[in-house]
Amino acid sequence: MAVAVVLLSGGLDSATALALARAEGFTPAALTFRYGQRHAVEIDAARRVAAAQRVARHEIVDIDLRAFGGSALTGDIAVPKDRGDDEIADGIPVTYVPARNTIMLSFALAFAEVLGSTDIFVGVNAVDYSGYPDCRPEYVAAFERMANLATKAGIEGRRLRLHAPLIAFTKGEIIRRGLALGVDYALTCSCYDPTPSGVACGRCDACRLRRKGFAEAGRKDPVAYAEGQ
Amino acid sequence: MAVAVVLLSGGLDSATALALARAEGFTPAALTFRYGQRHAVEIDAARRVAAAQRVARHEIVDIDLRAFGGSALTGDIAVPKDRGDDEIADGIPVTYVPARNTIMLSFALAFAEVLGSTDIFVGVNAVDYSGYPDCRPEYVAAFERMANLATKAGIEGRRLRLHAPLIAFTKGEIIRRGLALGVDYALTCSCYDPTPSGVACGRCDACRLRRKGFAEAGRKDPVAYAEGQ
Repeated sequence: MAVAVVLLSGGLDSATALALARAEGFTPAALTFRYGQRHAVEIDAARRVAAAQRVARHEIVDIDLRAFGGSALTGDIAVPKDRGDDEIADGIPVTYVPARNTIMLSFALAFAEVLGSTDIFVGVNAVDYSGYPDCRPEYVAAFERMANLATKAGIEGRRLRLHAPLIAFTKGEIIRRGLALGVDYALTCSCYDPTPSGVACGRCDACRLRRKGFAEAGRKDPVAYAEGQ
Repeated sequence: MAVAVVLLSGGLDSATALALARAEGFTPAALTFRYGQRHAVEIDAARRVAAAQRVARHEIVDIDLRAFGGSALTGDIAVPKDRGDDEIADGIPVTYVPARNTIMLSFALAFAEVLGSTDIFVGVNAVDYSGYPDCRPEYVAAFERMANLATKAGIEGRRLRLHAPLIAFTKGEIIRRGLALGVDYALTCSCYDPTPSGVACGRCDACRLRRKGFAEAGRKDPVAYAEGQ
């Protein structure tokens, strides 16, 4: 079976992308980043998700974006709480990490090349996170095009594909799809600002979108929240 | 003056790209990577070059590609020596690091975004290194296009430019241009396999191309070589 590199953050979306890669017949190799983020409990979530989905190779790579600063997820800007849907939809949020998806996909490209793989899966989603420029279909297409010019595989005519299977799904659709594939969302962590023991805050944009998604899907979120149950 | 991020390896090409960025009126911010390469003496060369060219901000970022393996520059594959020009020109060399330029440019993109800069300089060259897919003009154009879709700057209509001013120069032309701008090539290190004290081997592809370049330019290379003087 062909190997696919799957970016695995430990959140709901990437856990679903991993299950979809396997459902499409790929043997997944997972790639997780420790990027100086506040929410390092995500790494533990990624490990649990990879183990539950029987991933044979899971690499965790350190990248330190703190030297550059510039985001609530890596610096000292406060993570916003209790924003309304209009505010979430409006513009690029302070939780945007400069070039994060580009950096992570570049490492995925290196990993794929070393593994002899021509398939990369990423759980980006343009519906509920339209504020992030690097979650849009035109960005995914442009990265794929660049990747095919950057690598041996592309030069040798083995076309490299960047799969973004969740890009047009609502959060509720992602959850329904994942549950149908047996994803255990109790293992995932979506929160931007969890407690030190890993409990989701319940009030940041990521928690609010996740809870809305479970409500949409008509299913109970198996994760506990510190506030706002 | 506008800030430009310049990728600075400590080699001859990037030292020249840095001088060109300043000559074009930019205030350069330099970015160097410690990527598990054999030739860590390059980092010291990068520091010397940045100091000599009065760079106000020089960030050194650790990226570890050794977890993936796959290149003579990061792994246990031997650096080839004494290859003829035909061999150098023929195909992708084992010193090719998977997705290296893509990874480094992605970090440059993050740094540029945080600095509010829309200009990145990279010293890639398609003439003497045609074996590397990520040194070609079509790759540079595709990265620039992707970058404009990935970032706030691109979305907000401030066009991001990826400058590759050396791309069509021969090594001799690069050297002549750099000398005209006052670049001190004694500070640079091009060798893939220097001695522990930093002396260039004189026999790897990078040394051979550099020496050929100085011969072409009709100038004496100020760097000492372990062999083959």
